[in-house]
Amino acid sequence: MATSSVSEVVQAEGHLIDSQLLNAIFDKVIERNGKFEVLHFDIGRTNDEFSKLTLKVSVENESALGDLLEELMPLGCYAKPESDLKITPAEADACVPDDFYSTTNHRTYVKYEGMWIEVESQRMDAVIVVADGRASCKKLRDVRRGDRIVCGVSGIKISPEFRERDRLGFAFMMNDVSSERRVEVSVSKVLAMLKQTKRDGGRVAFVAGPVVVHSGGSPYFADLIRQGFVDVILAGNALAVHDVELDLFGTSLGIDLEAGVAVEEGHKNHMRAINAINRVGGLRQAVDEGLLNSGIMFEAIRRDVNIVLAGSIRDDGPLPDTIMDLVQAQDRYADALRDVSMVVMLSSMLHSIGVGNMLPSSVRVVCVDINPAVVTKLADRGSSQTAGIVTDVGLFLHQLSMQLTGSSESANRERSEER
Amino acid sequence: MATSSVSEVVQAEGHLIDSQLLNAIFDKVIERNGKFEVLHFDIGRTNDEFSKLTLKVSVENESALGDLLEELMPLGCYAKPESDLKITPAEADACVPDDFYSTTNHRTYVKYEGMWIEVESQRMDAVIVVADGRASCKKLRDVRRGDRIVCGVSGIKISPEFRERDRLGFAFMMNDVSSERRVEVSVSKVLAMLKQTKRDGGRVAFVAGPVVVHSGGSPYFADLIRQGFVDVILAGNALAVHDVELDLFGTSLGIDLEAGVAVEEGHKNHMRAINAINRVGGLRQAVDEGLLNSGIMFEAIRRDVNIVLAGSIRDDGPLPDTIMDLVQAQDRYADALRDVSMVVMLSSMLHSIGVGNMLPSSVRVVCVDINPAVVTKLADRGSSQTAGIVTDVGLFLHQLSMQLTGSSESANRERSEER
Amino acid sequence: MATSSVSEVVQAEGHLIDSQLLNAIFDKVIERNGKFEVLHFDIGRTNDEFSKLTLKVSVENESALGDLLEELMPLGCYAKPESDLKITPAEADACVPDDFYSTTNHRTYVKYEGMWIEVESQRMDAVIVVADGRASCKKLRDVRRGDRIVCGVSGIKISPEFRERDRLGFAFMMNDVSSERRVEVSVSKVLAMLKQTKRDGGRVAFVAGPVVVHSGGSPYFADLIRQGFVDVILAGNALAVHDVELDLFGTSLGIDLEAGVAVEEGHKNHMRAINAINRVGGLRQAVDEGLLNSGIMFEAIRRDVNIVLAGSIRDDGPLPDTIMDLVQAQDRYADALRDVSMVVMLSSMLHSIGVGNMLPSSVRVVCVDINPAVVTKLADRGSSQTAGIVTDVGLFLHQLSMQLTGSSESANRERSEER
Amino acid sequence: MATSSVSEVVQAEGHLIDSQLLNAIFDKVIERNGKFEVLHFDIGRTNDEFSKLTLKVSVENESALGDLLEELMPLGCYAKPESDLKITPAEADACVPDDFYSTTNHRTYVKYEGMWIEVESQRMDAVIVVADGRASCKKLRDVRRGDRIVCGVSGIKISPEFRERDRLGFAFMMNDVSSERRVEVSVSKVLAMLKQTKRDGGRVAFVAGPVVVHSGGSPYFADLIRQGFVDVILAGNALAVHDVELDLFGTSLGIDLEAGVAVEEGHKNHMRAINAINRVGGLRQAVDEGLLNSGIMFEAIRRDVNIVLAGSIRDDGPLPDTIMDLVQAQDRYADALRDVSMVVMLSSMLHSIGVGNMLPSSVRVVCVDINPAVVTKLADRGSSQTAGIVTDVGLFLHQLSMQLTGSSESANRERSEER
Repeated sequence: MATSSVSEVVQAEGHLIDSQLLNAIFDKVIERNGKFEVLHFDIGRTNDEFSKLTLKVSVENESALGDLLEELMPLGCYAKPESDLKITPAEADACVPDDFYSTTNHRTYVKYEGMWIEVESQRMDAVIVVADGRASCKKLRDVRRGDRIVCGVSGIKISPEFRERDRLGFAFMMNDVSSERRVEVSVSKVLAMLKQTKRDGGRVAFVAGPVVVHSGGSPYFADLIRQGFVDVILAGNALAVHDVELDLFGTSLGIDLEAGVAVEEGHKNHMRAINAINRVGGLRQAVDEGLLNSGIMFEAIRRDVNIVLAGSIRDDGPLPDTIMDLVQAQDRYADALRDVSMVVMLSSMLHSIGVGNMLPSSVRVVCVDINPAVVTKLADRGSSQTAGIVTDVGLFLHQLSMQLTGSSESANRERSEER
Repeated sequence: MATSSVSEVVQAEGHLIDSQLLNAIFDKVIERNGKFEVLHFDIGRTNDEFSKLTLKVSVENESALGDLLEELMPLGCYAKPESDLKITPAEADACVPDDFYSTTNHRTYVKYEGMWIEVESQRMDAVIVVADGRASCKKLRDVRRGDRIVCGVSGIKISPEFRERDRLGFAFMMNDVSSERRVEVSVSKVLAMLKQTKRDGGRVAFVAGPVVVHSGGSPYFADLIRQGFVDVILAGNALAVHDVELDLFGTSLGIDLEAGVAVEEGHKNHMRAINAINRVGGLRQAVDEGLLNSGIMFEAIRRDVNIVLAGSIRDDGPLPDTIMDLVQAQDRYADALRDVSMVVMLSSMLHSIGVGNMLPSSVRVVCVDINPAVVTKLADRGSSQTAGIVTDVGLFLHQLSMQLTGSSESANRERSEER
Repeated sequence: MATSSVSEVVQAEGHLIDSQLLNAIFDKVIERNGKFEVLHFDIGRTNDEFSKLTLKVSVENESALGDLLEELMPLGCYAKPESDLKITPAEADACVPDDFYSTTNHRTYVKYEGMWIEVESQRMDAVIVVADGRASCKKLRDVRRGDRIVCGVSGIKISPEFRERDRLGFAFMMNDVSSERRVEVSVSKVLAMLKQTKRDGGRVAFVAGPVVVHSGGSPYFADLIRQGFVDVILAGNALAVHDVELDLFGTSLGIDLEAGVAVEEGHKNHMRAINAINRVGGLRQAVDEGLLNSGIMFEAIRRDVNIVLAGSIRDDGPLPDTIMDLVQAQDRYADALRDVSMVVMLSSMLHSIGVGNMLPSSVRVVCVDINPAVVTKLADRGSSQTAGIVTDVGLFLHQLSMQLTGSSESANRERSEER
Repeated sequence: MATSSVSEVVQAEGHLIDSQLLNAIFDKVIERNGKFEVLHFDIGRTNDEFSKLTLKVSVENESALGDLLEELMPLGCYAKPESDLKITPAEADACVPDDFYSTTNHRTYVKYEGMWIEVESQRMDAVIVVADGRASCKKLRDVRRGDRIVCGVSGIKISPEFRERDRLGFAFMMNDVSSERRVEVSVSKVLAMLKQTKRDGGRVAFVAGPVVVHSGGSPYFADLIRQGFVDVILAGNALAVHDVELDLFGTSLGIDLEAGVAVEEGHKNHMRAINAINRVGGLRQAVDEGLLNSGIMFEAIRRDVNIVLAGSIRDDGPLPDTIMDLVQAQDRYADALRDVSMVVMLSSMLHSIGVGNMLPSSVRVVCVDINPAVVTKLADRGSSQTAGIVTDVGLFLHQLSMQLTGSSESANRERSEER
């Protein structure tokens, strides 16, 4: 281990034990060949109390110390709380100074003119721009020459999301990713979360891949929409095309979903579905004109769900509704996610990663996929917020709909009994 | 390509096109650097008619020709139909001559004293022993010094199982292994096969891994047993222990299957379950004494299902019922499979491979696993007989039970309406 | 089975046995509840000779017959060879008549004014437009009002790609998708295909995902480029960003590829890499100005490889080089693939599916991924053209580079010995 | 949350932060609907110092308190350190009292006659038997009537293995299970661990599945054996049969490992290999008589590696060396593992789970498999001791052998330069 010669004192407070932050802080120091000394540690005596840490970290030289401090920040550590931000103007559009501060998805505060202010539109992999006494996240591509960019590490404090121990069993699902689980239990927990979120006035976004249709999940997803659990649908062109194909022809990629046999070679129904929508000008027109009469898009359009379809390199068509300019699509996704408090990801790695990149860490995420590697990958991107369920997505939606119906039937019964 | 200088004429007949045998025969010749010439080919004019092939194959030398003829045999080709078998006595217990004939899982005939006789107890990777004018498969380890072993390739004719095109949609399921399928359709096809098999007086074996219990499938599997669809259960120690643990304590490996939370560290309930069964002497005693009151083992014992539990290196306990001598366990498995006409494999690669090795190719197999690699591996071992379903096994059984109940309710309704 | 009352005679010729077309034709008739009668079948007597089929198919009614004939077409069957095409003008931009003919990826001929002409720019899920005595595939979105669209099934003949038995062992790899294989053998076959393709003057496209960089494959992929085996790179923004990050900072998503430890939280190097390229204006400028000095993009730009980077919803940045308008990106992909005769897909399901949609069936495809489900999915889309290898893509490229170096060393040695 | 009315004070000491024990302790209390109050917490000031905790836990009633205390024990918490053990005699062979203490795989101490003594032969899912002033783990089946069994929770203290932060980068590998990694880095870390273990005089066991042979890993595994890195091989019958088949015939399950083509149908070489070994009486005789001349078994026998082959339900043969009595096989495995300090698991879920059950938590385990679900499952069983690598096992061994050869060449060079 290297001789440590420069040091700094950092502070952190919060649920440092529960969220495994304390462990992560120590790990990070050792990983960087540094040493630490706990100057002070007040442990939260009960589950509700905060812990407080004052830690001296030492590393070989100033450069390593700067790196270490930067890496301790996302864990909630901050040094020199008395210092103000460092701000440098952007030299050109989409270009920032080399020492720019790159954001995390955690709530962040910056010290500007002696005051801690919260950063707006928090998301990860952005820069912070200060203007008019306010600070907000901006994507690199949206930076304009002269924008005042937050640089370095002084005057920045991050408040990592704390993993909660006991709410709705969310933690349970996060414990591990395994297909050797009774899915009905996970389904009931997800349903409880959905209901709680709606009761709290929250909005729920679903990210859905075409497997939702192939695997027969459409009518059950449509149920969820009808019952008001879906405020936003973020998907690609394929989900909509398969959904339309199913309504118009009863097939999905040429497979008859009732009989289970391939109906046509060459995906002709797929192309016919696109042609039919092209002819009327779009999905909403297809609903208005009575062309489209069931399915995910039909229910979502009828209930004014905010649907954003983002294009991709694999798209057929695309439908007139699909946004093929991906800069615009990302912006539309981000807008749709702005006030969402829960996201359910159904078998769509691509769109789920895209959505994950845009979310602050306070949003609860449930990810359902039959491939454990996908669930692990998505959960890794924000481990304190994502619960993964490894199962068949069609059957998952079937179960969810059954439990939902069961509970609404019970609810109806209870209500009628009350009278 | 090598100069071909020796040749032989072979014949084959049957559904050579449907079963892709003709293609496989040609492939094999080319793969072995040989040439072929079709001397005669009569195509079956309709779906029911047989095709007949007479083919001249040529390869470089006699040794290569022998190898090629041997490899063409499992595809139904036979040469010199006038020749008798070559029989050589075994030199010692479990030892056979170098040119012994190693069996496939297809129906096989040998020409003995001028007559074609069918080989009994057909299974793959065995030798054929001739005694008292009868021929039968014997495992190498069961060969005794002096047994008359079939050697070489003369006088042997194999009748490969023909893939059927249109029965119960079995073919559909075999088309591909994908999780992007509507499982409800596969479930209804499996249910139809089960009913058809029982109507035809057939017996059904289930191979089941402990995931059946972990994933919450127990009550649904128990339904199947209660309704008479399960004649044989082939499993390991773990299935039984988890099943007992679930009945006695409501947990599976310490996970409470209702609440979904871990109940105990160290798998204590697992060990308590074994201890409880040890105390009464076995599973049947546990049922008789009222200790065990629900679950897979309970229902199976009450209905006299033939249960064989084979030990493995990973077993805790084991239960008194588990056969830890694997030679004996294999023999018991093989006995139980003797008159079975359908096998359903549920999330147990180990036992499923074991069972697959013992089955003749005429037995229909359905394999359900959430891991596509497992399904592919099992299907590869006998592609004309195995249909794979990639899905969550707990939800699969739930669906199967629901459709079963639905159909028995409909059946009841129909019956009562008839009156 | 339904009473069959209408019938039609169809013909087909080619390697009907080898390519399993004959079997597929019979299957299709039975699947559609039809009957068939083989009026005439001439089998190819040797591996090189064609077979010829004349088949009478019967189904219940005219509508079913039309459907059946349409489905038999991709299998090479054609009816009424004397009839001309049916052509109907497009009613509006991106809209075609309901009975439009939807293309496959197989070579296709249409009978126009009594002559069979080959359709140009063959790809699947397109329509055929006839103009100036020529026929060519057009994507639905490119159709303009008044374009003369091929409709129905008359006068269309498809020539399915024939699976070859014995060239370079390609068939071997296609036999099954399994991770239980000796990868070195597959590597040597892929290398042989690459060399053969280049010797024949062919062009090779690589589709590559960011896992190529994460898994340490960059220097080996760069070797392939340097040695002239890569003519086209089709990828997304992420591959390029990770590649630049690796060159500039030695990390990939913050993981130090030499030490294997995470260097930074929050993917800062990832964002710094984008910022650096933004500053100079693009990848080519980065090479020209000496900013970028190694890696995939560096080697590809120096050798004028045709690089197309398509945007996606998950992109950070994007780099100035990434095409975020996906209609344009698809067109650029299609252009780059126009004269390619071999494609290697490395760990990128999204871009690989996109590419697969654009390729005629005559192009050889090798797909490498550690996930068997991805390989199966890609292989399913064109089973006669795609070989799948389930392995670690970083180690695969390492092996490929080693065998390449070994063989160039041997070649050098041979050349020097010849002198 | 329930009203808490009974409470107890527990203590724990050690690297409570690093090993996430503190977090786990708090979690467990909340999960059980309890409350906690930290009475005292001394944090280790540096990486090397221990932390000390005194915690008051409260739950609803005595029964829940007993359960909670039992569950806190594996996390290192102990109550009433002044109390002695509770010991109850076994009522019958293989039967223990209902409140028996079921062991974990962590080092355990029991207070017997006022003294803390360490439990011998530590393993999980066993009971503790006290005899002659010593305590040791015994499998349930080995318990004899009258054995003095440790019951309840008093007088038992567990010392969980502490996760080390900085040794040989082991921690790095444990961070996540992903195929998106540069395997060369993991290989070099595994090699460093192997060398360190041998330098420290430790013994290394390899658990290996037949995929090692199929995937071409045999010669590289043989290298490791030759160089003295393998002290124990735990495997099944299949590994040995495939290994013999490869040496005698150059194939593995009929696949020619050089040419990559299938050589025979029906696995005949597989059966011929068994027959050949049967004839000479076993593997050692085959080496002695010059029948077997290369491969894993050959090298292992020549170097007196302790080989234990455990039978399974899927075995062909088996070889005379394979132990088909699984009780005996488990005992032989356990014996072979007694003084091992590192285990490498190569593509064998079954045998790896078996081995995992037998190991104390102080043994380092590396698990290599191409299926991420297998790696996750094995790592879950002892998260503080197992590092997982998701990659192709054949290529992994190839890399390991290359780095080993590279390093021995370097070592030789260094040695010769020293002279």
